[in-house]
Amino acid sequence: MNRDPEHFLCRIEEGVATVSLDRPERKNPLTFDSYAELRDWFRDLHYDDSVKAVVFASNGGNFCSGGDVHDIIGPLTKMSMRELLAFTRMTGDLVKAIVTCGKPVIAAIDGICVGAGAIIAMASDIRIATPEAKTAFLFTRVGLAGCDMGACAILPRIIGQGRAAELLYTGRSMSAEEGQAWGFHNKLVAADQLDAEAQAWAARIAAGPNFGHMMTKTMLAQEWSMSIEQAIEAEAQAQAICMQTADFERAYHAFVNKEKPLFEGD
Amino acid sequence: MNRDPEHFLCRIEEGVATVSLDRPERKNPLTFDSYAELRDWFRDLHYDDSVKAVVFASNGGNFCSGGDVHDIIGPLTKMSMRELLAFTRMTGDLVKAIVTCGKPVIAAIDGICVGAGAIIAMASDIRIATPEAKTAFLFTRVGLAGCDMGACAILPRIIGQGRAAELLYTGRSMSAEEGQAWGFHNKLVAADQLDAEAQAWAARIAAGPNFGHMMTKTMLAQEWSMSIEQAIEAEAQAQAICMQTADFERAYHAFVNKEKPLFEGD
Amino acid sequence: MNRDPEHFLCRIEEGVATVSLDRPERKNPLTFDSYAELRDWFRDLHYDDSVKAVVFASNGGNFCSGGDVHDIIGPLTKMSMRELLAFTRMTGDLVKAIVTCGKPVIAAIDGICVGAGAIIAMASDIRIATPEAKTAFLFTRVGLAGCDMGACAILPRIIGQGRAAELLYTGRSMSAEEGQAWGFHNKLVAADQLDAEAQAWAARIAAGPNFGHMMTKTMLAQEWSMSIEQAIEAEAQAQAICMQTADFERAYHAFVNKEKPLFEGD
Repeated sequence: MNRDPEHFLCRIEEGVATVSLDRPERKNPLTFDSYAELRDWFRDLHYDDSVKAVVFASNGGNFCSGGDVHDIIGPLTKMSMRELLAFTRMTGDLVKAIVTCGKPVIAAIDGICVGAGAIIAMASDIRIATPEAKTAFLFTRVGLAGCDMGACAILPRIIGQGRAAELLYTGRSMSAEEGQAWGFHNKLVAADQLDAEAQAWAARIAAGPNFGHMMTKTMLAQEWSMSIEQAIEAEAQAQAICMQTADFERAYHAFVNKEKPLFEGD
Repeated sequence: MNRDPEHFLCRIEEGVATVSLDRPERKNPLTFDSYAELRDWFRDLHYDDSVKAVVFASNGGNFCSGGDVHDIIGPLTKMSMRELLAFTRMTGDLVKAIVTCGKPVIAAIDGICVGAGAIIAMASDIRIATPEAKTAFLFTRVGLAGCDMGACAILPRIIGQGRAAELLYTGRSMSAEEGQAWGFHNKLVAADQLDAEAQAWAARIAAGPNFGHMMTKTMLAQEWSMSIEQAIEAEAQAQAICMQTADFERAYHAFVNKEKPLFEGD
Repeated sequence: MNRDPEHFLCRIEEGVATVSLDRPERKNPLTFDSYAELRDWFRDLHYDDSVKAVVFASNGGNFCSGGDVHDIIGPLTKMSMRELLAFTRMTGDLVKAIVTCGKPVIAAIDGICVGAGAIIAMASDIRIATPEAKTAFLFTRVGLAGCDMGACAILPRIIGQGRAAELLYTGRSMSAEEGQAWGFHNKLVAADQLDAEAQAWAARIAAGPNFGHMMTKTMLAQEWSMSIEQAIEAEAQAQAICMQTADFERAYHAFVNKEKPLFEGD
C-alpha cells in the first residue's frame, strides 16, 4: 500500500490511517489524479492488515467539494462515450474499493461535503459531523442525474427512499441536524473536537476484533441483495469461520478471568 | 397522452401535470374506471416529455379514500379467481406505471389518504402533506393482507421494516407528524398552502435537468434488488449517458459564466 | 406443536402464545437446548393455526442475555468447523423459523436484550419495550463478527444502514429512546404495563384477519430481494388469494351493515 500518496494526505499511526484531500483553499475538490490514487489506495488496503481502521478527514474546515469544475467537469463535456464510461467507472470503482477494503472507514465531516465528497461520506461505514456540515448530492445542479457512484442504491438504505429521492432530485443540502435525525450522521460534535472524536472511534475499532470487523464489513455489502434465507445461511458460514479465530478464544478466556480481552486479529 | 381524462381531473400547465380524483363528497374513492384510466395515463406519460413533473393533488380536503366499498369491494366478493387476479394486476400496474413513467411525481396529501390512496402516495417520489393528513394501509381492516400493490416491498424502504410491519398488520392511521418523523412525508405545510407548495416543488423539478431526473427515477427503481457492485456499474453507464446531454454542457458553461443554468431537457 | 416445552416457558390462551426464557436469575441466557427447542417450536407453529399471534416476553425484568458464556461460548471455542457450522446454522434456523412461522410475533422487551436476544427481538414483527430496555448486538465484544443470525441483512432494513453499522461494529447498547426514534421499537411503555400492552397488541392481531396476517408476514419476507416489478406481481397473486377468503366477504357485509367484522380465519 502506498504510504506516501502524491494526490492526498495520508498518515498512519497505531493501525489507523487518516486520509484527507489537500486543496483546502478550494474546499478540497477531487481531480482525475486524486480519484485514481484514492481508488488504488483503498484497493491495496484490502491486502494490508497493518491498517485496521481508516479516518477520511476534513481539511481546513471542509470535507470535499466534489469533482473540480475546471479540472473535471470541463474536460468531461468534451469526451467521447468511451472516455466518459472510463471516468464514471473509475469513480464507481472508488466506492467499490471503499466498500470492499475490509476495514471500517469513518468519515469526519466538517463544512462542505458535496458531489463526489457526499458519495465518499455515504460509502463510509460511520459518519461523524460538525453542526456546520452541509452534505449535498448536487449532481442534478450540474445537469446530470442523481445516480452517481451508487447513490440511488446506497443512500436510500441509509436515510430511507423518500428522503433520498428528495436529496437526489433537488440537489439541496442536508443540514447536519437532518443528517443526524435521518441516520446519515452517527454523531455530531463541535468542529474543534471532530478530529479527536473520529480518532477515538477509529482507535476503538482498531482495537479489534479486526478479523470480525472485516467480516462484518464484508457481509454488510455481500448480503445487500440476498433473500433473508440466503443471508442467514451466509452469516452461518461467516460466523463459523470467525469462531475459529484465536480472538474468539481470547475473548472467552478474558471473560472467564474477568479481564478485558486483548485482540490480535487472528 | 389523454389530456382530458373522463374519470379524474387533469390540468397541464408549464410542463406540470396536476391530477386528482374527483369525488370530493366521498373523499375521492377509486373505481374500476379511474384505476384503469390512471394506469393508462401514467403509462402514456412515459412517452410524453412535454410533461416534466406530476402533482397528484388532494381535492376538497382529502387525498383518496381507496377502493370504493360499493363500486369495488362488493363486486370483488363475487368474482372468480381469474377476475380477481385481473383486478389485482390492474391495481399493481398503476403502481408500476407511476414508478416507470420517467417523471417525478409529487403527492400533495390533505385529509384522508387510505387504502389504494395510501399506495398512490407511497408510489410517488415526494410526499408533501398537511397536519391533517391521515395515511392508513387499512387492507387488514377489510379482511385482506397488507401486501397490496407493492406495499410490503416499498413501504419498508421508506419508513423502515418495523414501522411498516406495524402499519400493515394493524391498518392504523399514520399521523402527519409520524409520517414526517419517519421519512414518509418530505414536508408538512398548512392546508391552505398545500397546492402552492406542491406546485413550487413541481416547478423546480420541471425546470430540469429533465433527462437527468428521468434517469434518477429510472435508477431508483432499477437498482432496487441489485448488488452494490451491480448498482455502481449500472450508475456508471447511466451517468455516462447523461454526460452526453447538452444540459450537462449548459450547466458547465453557466457555471463558468457565473450564470444560472437553463436546462432544455436534451 | 409442543405446548409444554422443556427449556422455555409457554402459555397459550385465546389464540395467543406467550413464550419466554426461564433463567431470570441469569437474565435468561440461551442454551443449546433452548435454541433447538425454540427453533422446533416456531417451525411447528407454521402448521398450527390455533395460535394466531405470539408474544416473546421478558422474564424477571430482562428479555434475554444471549448465548450463555459457560454453556455455549466455552464449548464453541473447542469445536471443529463441522460442529461450529452446525451450531451457527441452528441459530440461523431459529431466525428463519420465526420469520416463516406465519404468525405475527411481538417482542416485549424489558432490561437486557443482547446477543442472540437482540436477534430474536430483531426477527420479531413488532417490538414493544420499556425505558429500561438495553439492546446490544455485542458479537464483536466476544471476538466475533456482527454478521450473526441475519443481523447484517435485517437490522439495516429496520434502523438504516448507518446506525446498523455502528451497532454491529461497536457492540454498544441501543437505548430504548434511540430504539424508538430509529424505528426498532414500535412503542415504549412502563415496565409494569409491558405484559398488558403486548397482550393487547397480540389480542388485536389474533382477532384477525389471520389468513391476511399470515400472507402479510409471508410477503414481507418473500419480497425482500425482489425487484419492484416482481414484488408487485407477487402481491397481485397473494392478494387475489386473500380476496377468496370468507373473511373478506365478512368484512364487506359487516361494513354494509355498519357492524364490526368478526373474522374467522378462513
